[in-house]
Amino acid sequence: MKAFVMKEIGEVGVIEKDKPEAGPNDAILKPTKGLVCTSDVHTVGGAIGEKNDLTLGHEVVGIVDAVGEEVDLFEPGDRVAVGAITPDWGSDASQRGYPSQSHGALGGWMFANVKDGTFAEYVHVNDADANLAKIPEGVKDEIAVYVADMLSTGFAGAENAEIPIGGTVAVFAQGPVGLMATKGAMLKGAAKVYAVETDSARAELARRYGADEVIDFQTVDPVKRIMELTEGKGVDSAIEALGSSKTFEDCVNVTRPGGTVSNIGYHGQGDFVRIPREGWGVGMSDITINTALCPGGRVRLQRLLRLLDEGKVDPSPMTTHKFGFENIEAGFKLMKTKDDGVIKPLIEF
Amino acid sequence: MKAFVMKEIGEVGVIEKDKPEAGPNDAILKPTKGLVCTSDVHTVGGAIGEKNDLTLGHEVVGIVDAVGEEVDLFEPGDRVAVGAITPDWGSDASQRGYPSQSHGALGGWMFANVKDGTFAEYVHVNDADANLAKIPEGVKDEIAVYVADMLSTGFAGAENAEIPIGGTVAVFAQGPVGLMATKGAMLKGAAKVYAVETDSARAELARRYGADEVIDFQTVDPVKRIMELTEGKGVDSAIEALGSSKTFEDCVNVTRPGGTVSNIGYHGQGDFVRIPREGWGVGMSDITINTALCPGGRVRLQRLLRLLDEGKVDPSPMTTHKFGFENIEAGFKLMKTKDDGVIKPLIEF
Amino acid sequence: MKAFVMKEIGEVGVIEKDKPEAGPNDAILKPTKGLVCTSDVHTVGGAIGEKNDLTLGHEVVGIVDAVGEEVDLFEPGDRVAVGAITPDWGSDASQRGYPSQSHGALGGWMFANVKDGTFAEYVHVNDADANLAKIPEGVKDEIAVYVADMLSTGFAGAENAEIPIGGTVAVFAQGPVGLMATKGAMLKGAAKVYAVETDSARAELARRYGADEVIDFQTVDPVKRIMELTEGKGVDSAIEALGSSKTFEDCVNVTRPGGTVSNIGYHGQGDFVRIPREGWGVGMSDITINTALCPGGRVRLQRLLRLLDEGKVDPSPMTTHKFGFENIEAGFKLMKTKDDGVIKPLIEF
Amino acid sequence: MKAFVMKEIGEVGVIEKDKPEAGPNDAILKPTKGLVCTSDVHTVGGAIGEKNDLTLGHEVVGIVDAVGEEVDLFEPGDRVAVGAITPDWGSDASQRGYPSQSHGALGGWMFANVKDGTFAEYVHVNDADANLAKIPEGVKDEIAVYVADMLSTGFAGAENAEIPIGGTVAVFAQGPVGLMATKGAMLKGAAKVYAVETDSARAELARRYGADEVIDFQTVDPVKRIMELTEGKGVDSAIEALGSSKTFEDCVNVTRPGGTVSNIGYHGQGDFVRIPREGWGVGMSDITINTALCPGGRVRLQRLLRLLDEGKVDPSPMTTHKFGFENIEAGFKLMKTKDDGVIKPLIEF
Repeated sequence: MKAFVMKEIGEVGVIEKDKPEAGPNDAILKPTKGLVCTSDVHTVGGAIGEKNDLTLGHEVVGIVDAVGEEVDLFEPGDRVAVGAITPDWGSDASQRGYPSQSHGALGGWMFANVKDGTFAEYVHVNDADANLAKIPEGVKDEIAVYVADMLSTGFAGAENAEIPIGGTVAVFAQGPVGLMATKGAMLKGAAKVYAVETDSARAELARRYGADEVIDFQTVDPVKRIMELTEGKGVDSAIEALGSSKTFEDCVNVTRPGGTVSNIGYHGQGDFVRIPREGWGVGMSDITINTALCPGGRVRLQRLLRLLDEGKVDPSPMTTHKFGFENIEAGFKLMKTKDDGVIKPLIEF
Repeated sequence: MKAFVMKEIGEVGVIEKDKPEAGPNDAILKPTKGLVCTSDVHTVGGAIGEKNDLTLGHEVVGIVDAVGEEVDLFEPGDRVAVGAITPDWGSDASQRGYPSQSHGALGGWMFANVKDGTFAEYVHVNDADANLAKIPEGVKDEIAVYVADMLSTGFAGAENAEIPIGGTVAVFAQGPVGLMATKGAMLKGAAKVYAVETDSARAELARRYGADEVIDFQTVDPVKRIMELTEGKGVDSAIEALGSSKTFEDCVNVTRPGGTVSNIGYHGQGDFVRIPREGWGVGMSDITINTALCPGGRVRLQRLLRLLDEGKVDPSPMTTHKFGFENIEAGFKLMKTKDDGVIKPLIEF
Repeated sequence: MKAFVMKEIGEVGVIEKDKPEAGPNDAILKPTKGLVCTSDVHTVGGAIGEKNDLTLGHEVVGIVDAVGEEVDLFEPGDRVAVGAITPDWGSDASQRGYPSQSHGALGGWMFANVKDGTFAEYVHVNDADANLAKIPEGVKDEIAVYVADMLSTGFAGAENAEIPIGGTVAVFAQGPVGLMATKGAMLKGAAKVYAVETDSARAELARRYGADEVIDFQTVDPVKRIMELTEGKGVDSAIEALGSSKTFEDCVNVTRPGGTVSNIGYHGQGDFVRIPREGWGVGMSDITINTALCPGGRVRLQRLLRLLDEGKVDPSPMTTHKFGFENIEAGFKLMKTKDDGVIKPLIEF
Repeated sequence: MKAFVMKEIGEVGVIEKDKPEAGPNDAILKPTKGLVCTSDVHTVGGAIGEKNDLTLGHEVVGIVDAVGEEVDLFEPGDRVAVGAITPDWGSDASQRGYPSQSHGALGGWMFANVKDGTFAEYVHVNDADANLAKIPEGVKDEIAVYVADMLSTGFAGAENAEIPIGGTVAVFAQGPVGLMATKGAMLKGAAKVYAVETDSARAELARRYGADEVIDFQTVDPVKRIMELTEGKGVDSAIEALGSSKTFEDCVNVTRPGGTVSNIGYHGQGDFVRIPREGWGVGMSDITINTALCPGGRVRLQRLLRLLDEGKVDPSPMTTHKFGFENIEAGFKLMKTKDDGVIKPLIEF
């Protein structure tokens, strides 16, 4: 079968691979639609070390091709979504309530990390009963594919932000995950969301997903502006959706005592991420800093698909480009260059 | 009346002051026992800026001398404890559940900060009904005085650490607050507490309060040792009870994915406190970082006094020295030099 | 001044009373708009025992007329909302996080209970700094008045229901509180809300506030229908907004294991409210039953007013009738008979 | 192999059965020690309906005899504990955080319910990696066997009771689960535990496990006494460890507004369990009612075993009788009659 792989650091391409086989608890999925993620770009750049011929991708939906003997809930032909994160639900971390951390930090992240990813003609899904979900009839594949990572991660940012009903929220960065954090904050009862973003197309989408004001950090100091907007008090909750120390510091600085900073940005650089000592109230201001990796699992996927089915979230404006699987390298390169106002490139298998 | 004050940065002494008067909701307290705190030393060193003739101290118990017209629960002659933190319970932060942050970060800290402290013959207590508690008959003043700050702060460190029953905990630094964090971890159901401390007398006390092992950071790398003790997994919860970036970094590094870092150390220096990027799982490991300032209030004080009354905590081994109020400057200087194995100097009025 | 009172059980009327005076922490409010509540009807029926010449009412907005010497945040002329519940924020229960229970069960409920209510030319407000909130310019009095009780109680029902994002919720009864519970469930991220109501006008409003389906319990068994709609699993959360044992039992029966029942109905009759043993999983199904009395306080009011100011909630369709204060008895009687499709009668002072 | 079974309602005996086989994720366990539970008596009485030749028992420890091909963490010869509850960790309820409710209410309870129990020469354990735990060298089998149900259930009662540090707790009934709830309350930081029990031997053990006072409900009204002991306020938390409507009602009646009732009693009779309307504050007193079924899983077992290994809990005084497996019927009958001061009969295989 064909697979789009990282050949080595800095080099990608389509190669032939053996079709995977299902163990007793597994399924084989035939993808229909996928999305390229900035993480794929980071991986090829070396973020998780050297990898040879590792199939890329972690966001797809598709059709079940085969299932193992212990799989009860799915059968070949089912149209299903799969999480970007596919935990081992019996692991130590899962039993403690953190399935995304199965077998160590970020260990629930298997696709294109500890095993082949989803950009191939066939995809191996571990613990299929727990990690797949049937897609409701009314939800199209190109919409459903957003539950794998974008909705799940963005909404986790909002859920971890502990937003009080009628509260105020700042969301730093409005890439696709940040946009879904903005939408998630609205879904969790925020009265006001202040988004930080300089790109005008993303700013427009942020407003569409509920932001009251979008602060262009190129022209305005976002900390100063958010403190003004909150009469010097700061927001109840701040969400970091970029992964830089600077925006993280800003998040702490705009959060009121007793408030919450929710990090969903992937911090890929440097030895340290810095907490501003004074903004943190010298470590005594009752500020909480939460973190999350994209939650996976059948129940999570079902809830997100239900929101799509009800029309409560419409991810389609984030699909700025479409490519056939045969042209996936072009989609990948576009995500790398971030040209042409790209937000998410949709891959059609 | 006599008051022990910070005359200016770096200078202390006893001066004459007017006796304070009670507003409608207030009380005047005549102290009987007090404790000197390292915070007093920091304050005189300039930690909260220049202050002139500010009465020092925030840890006392005493006798009610007078009450305002709106005070219902106390009357002159009552033997009472008062919290180091005396919140305005109707403030914005209090209504949100964070009374220690009344009117801004750390704003519930009034004694020796925004008003005169407790090292005087008479002490003004705001919102007396809410901030005083009667001392049970069986609890002596010199024991009760530990509830003002040491028990309340140390136990808050343990409560915020979200320790599962049978869990593992690391407590960095075994000063009086760290010792009470160790004891608090035991009270909250920890199976194992690993304490980090180099001073042998403090190490001995740590074991007495429940630590399974005390790691001397002068001879052993505490991160390495704690990872060994937990078979490479890290602890469920780590408590920072010192206030340095280094120990905070160590806390993050020894905490397992999904675990909790609970900060109660006062971070007095530098622009930033640093989070180790990898130990933090690049911001995606479901680790939570909580912070707290000493909780105050009548209910808190009553619960802590109940624990003393039941004999479930014995703070007396922390009283290493005693001074009459007339010699309080000597007690203060001892706390500054940390000579003679001092943990807490008790002041007798 | 004129006041609309309960003269004795079963009898109401307007009488002359002395204008109240403000103690040090209090304010006097001159109402502009009010709402009659079914609780007023219950009170006159004897629900809280015999009361003589007790001023009725707990839902108003108005203008500050006078303030006590300790009041900092308000001054005469301010246009303000006041909660139906006006806690003593320093009380034992408030310090524990339950201000509505100040000084005993439901003790934060002072208006028309332990002191005169709000249906008078002047109203005494205890702890004014903590219990009033300025109304934003863009929010009219007749809208703002809904924050006192209807929004606060209804939303509390949704908040206590612990609704997961994308979750399913059942709301039993669609009076004004139930309608706001339905709206609140949407604001907290529910994907599907199943409302139970037989009155067609209320059913129509329930759909307007977000209900996917309204189940008419006169023609369909709501438990059976909700189990069908959830494929036999039951909902994540059920909200009781009526106050009868039967609907409470239904709530338990439609809630899945691990789900939450949130009670906001006032149970006014009988010695017991019954939990169905099997639906409750013989007391071992990890179902939680939460309860709440309307939350009060400045912060709560501000957040609710912010939602109104942003247009995220529109309570105006619930105002089915209007009366001048001089005709308040007619409004009260309408609320008693529930004639003419009444939901809330607005009183104009 | 030999198995001690329920032949039909009301009749037990030892019969021959085929040795079970391990599927890919399973293990076969050879028991060494077991405990008889009152639930076994209920089951034979018909509590879960007619069952023929169902092997009884759910509390054992033993040696791994065989494992399936997908089992990684265990191998034949390992000395292990197994939970009374053996969840399917990928199930809907497990993913929602309620593994004991896998596949429906109480569905994680498999032994002697939906499959054969543990009173046999060989025992089938589903999802072995997730549901077994190695026993530390220092913990003997006859001690370790208490983690399967008694510690896990009793401590869950205390954990769900949301006990504040220094709080007050009432525990109704001091059978083995109630005793462990009393101990659990101490481990979670209670200052005072009031136990309710009439049997003098159990009362003695309750004091040993930390109860300050044991109230004999045969001679004193426990509600009245607990209200006296708490100065009319009620306790922070009440734990129901019997399973009768009367004790459940008492739990609600002794719980203060904002407090928590934690049910771990199995309610085996009647259509309803009753909430006293007034004690519940007419459904508006911010009282929470939590429920739980014994938590299972490797992580839970490891934490409980760690507490035993540290000597923080000593369950041995609860072992009042010992029987060889060949005499298990005598142990079962003793548990039924509750003669001779029996608390737990230990079975030696």
